[in-house]
Amino acid sequence: MSNTVDLIIIGAGPAGLAASIYASRYGVEHSVIGLILGGQISETHEIDNYPGMENMSGFDFSQKWGHHVEKYGINIIPQRVRSIKEAKESQTFEIELENNAVYNAKVVLLATGTKRRQLNIPGEAEFRGKGVSYCATCDGFFYKNKTVGIIGGGDSAVGAALYLANICQKVYIIYRKNELRAEPFWLKLIENNEKIELIYETNVAKISGGDKLEKIELDKDYNGGKELKIDGLFIEAGSDPDISYAKDLEIKLDEGGYVKIAKDGATSMPGVWAAGDITDGSDKFRQVLTAAAEGAITARSIFNWLKKQSK
Amino acid sequence: MSNTVDLIIIGAGPAGLAASIYASRYGVEHSVIGLILGGQISETHEIDNYPGMENMSGFDFSQKWGHHVEKYGINIIPQRVRSIKEAKESQTFEIELENNAVYNAKVVLLATGTKRRQLNIPGEAEFRGKGVSYCATCDGFFYKNKTVGIIGGGDSAVGAALYLANICQKVYIIYRKNELRAEPFWLKLIENNEKIELIYETNVAKISGGDKLEKIELDKDYNGGKELKIDGLFIEAGSDPDISYAKDLEIKLDEGGYVKIAKDGATSMPGVWAAGDITDGSDKFRQVLTAAAEGAITARSIFNWLKKQSK
Repeated sequence: MSNTVDLIIIGAGPAGLAASIYASRYGVEHSVIGLILGGQISETHEIDNYPGMENMSGFDFSQKWGHHVEKYGINIIPQRVRSIKEAKESQTFEIELENNAVYNAKVVLLATGTKRRQLNIPGEAEFRGKGVSYCATCDGFFYKNKTVGIIGGGDSAVGAALYLANICQKVYIIYRKNELRAEPFWLKLIENNEKIELIYETNVAKISGGDKLEKIELDKDYNGGKELKIDGLFIEAGSDPDISYAKDLEIKLDEGGYVKIAKDGATSMPGVWAAGDITDGSDKFRQVLTAAAEGAITARSIFNWLKKQSK
Repeated sequence: MSNTVDLIIIGAGPAGLAASIYASRYGVEHSVIGLILGGQISETHEIDNYPGMENMSGFDFSQKWGHHVEKYGINIIPQRVRSIKEAKESQTFEIELENNAVYNAKVVLLATGTKRRQLNIPGEAEFRGKGVSYCATCDGFFYKNKTVGIIGGGDSAVGAALYLANICQKVYIIYRKNELRAEPFWLKLIENNEKIELIYETNVAKISGGDKLEKIELDKDYNGGKELKIDGLFIEAGSDPDISYAKDLEIKLDEGGYVKIAKDGATSMPGVWAAGDITDGSDKFRQVLTAAAEGAITARSIFNWLKKQSK
């Protein structure tokens, strides 16, 4: 059984939901498929960098966006997509869900964001959102004048350290190698920043605490002991675009695996669009706000494209 | 008397306010100068296309954004900028306000948006926000199944007509010339759309009603009379970037007078950045959401730039 619509939006995070709101306002018939309302944002313990909506839990934030989408009559289908194939005869895309349902659409919008790499340290899952964070820009401000640790040594870890040093009292960078892998100008700033302390050739062996994270255990001695008391731990092991379901599409990716998009959100494959963290857009600044803006831009482009096709 | 800060943000609309929130979170010392909190959005009678904030008056919306900015300790200076000059000795920019106050800043962010062209038709000012609108995407949805008129004949008027035809029962395009100036594919769609009616070589002479707009008077007969009953009138006479105060800066503009920006929001002049409706960014889709995203991207870029300078 198949249901054909003009547009299928894959992903129910900020990009997909913003695209849906704009598509509804443009009168584009569409469905949204996404397992988790709000996507990654639903896991953020508090969001305060989306202008106009102050200090809100990721859950409440996601609910508000979901409500905004649904008031235009759109139901979000809580499923994962298994595969997307071109159905050349009908000039549509065939989208198969993990529950075996099949949808056909003239246009697909890929908006499934990224997955944070996890390290699977004991305690990591338990303290996620209770001191363990995967996003310094999202959560850093909640550790004002506190002590935090960062695991990682690449550009994102170093950027996070400098960002957090502006806010926190003390920032430890814990890195398994013996030097950071980041741009020279960042490194100099790290060296000159008295708040930042580097712990090289060390891994975090355990994360523990009560209701919230209280300390971590290192795999070797530092300042005479393995225990480090911190209020927050930022895991900056990188993210990967979440796009395995789209492997049958001929879309160009950048060196990091992100979907290359034109200014209007088009991918290299006609009829396939992308928005949000999954793309190389917005100067690669991956935020709720920028993802949503890409969703809006893409919805307009899809509206125009569908109008041209129906000529 | 002069006050030197790292960053001056000029404009208190979505781009400037989002940039301020992000700059605060990055720890960048800055001020915001803008006469009207919210900028153009403060005039919109209702906004419903900013995800997560449903059906809000432009005034309330602007207040929320202002509050979000101010909670980080930033005061918005309610003034207009008269001029910006390079102060080469101090390697800063000198910003003079209309009240003669002078500020110096290492970086300036231009975020003053656009001004809608007004036609100065009798009744236009009186019914602004009560049926007269300058933005179909902002306000169109409030005329669902109603009758609207559009003044104009360029791409923006034609785009507005197609957008409104998806929502409204009837759309009149009133244009002073004898053919539309828009892309062929748009024109064909206009011709084929039964809801859209063209009234050529005609001007609107008067706008009238009670509490709300009820009718317009044309300057020549149409269907046997000069009067046309409509619920809403969209004036699509174009917009112009609001940038006269920055004429002493050497920044490149596009053919429409918009500030050309790189992906990171940089203009062609070092130390000068731009975000929002004033730029050629976001595929020229000028919305609260896209303006705010540009503000965020630019704040990050400015943070990085200032860090590099202070090496």
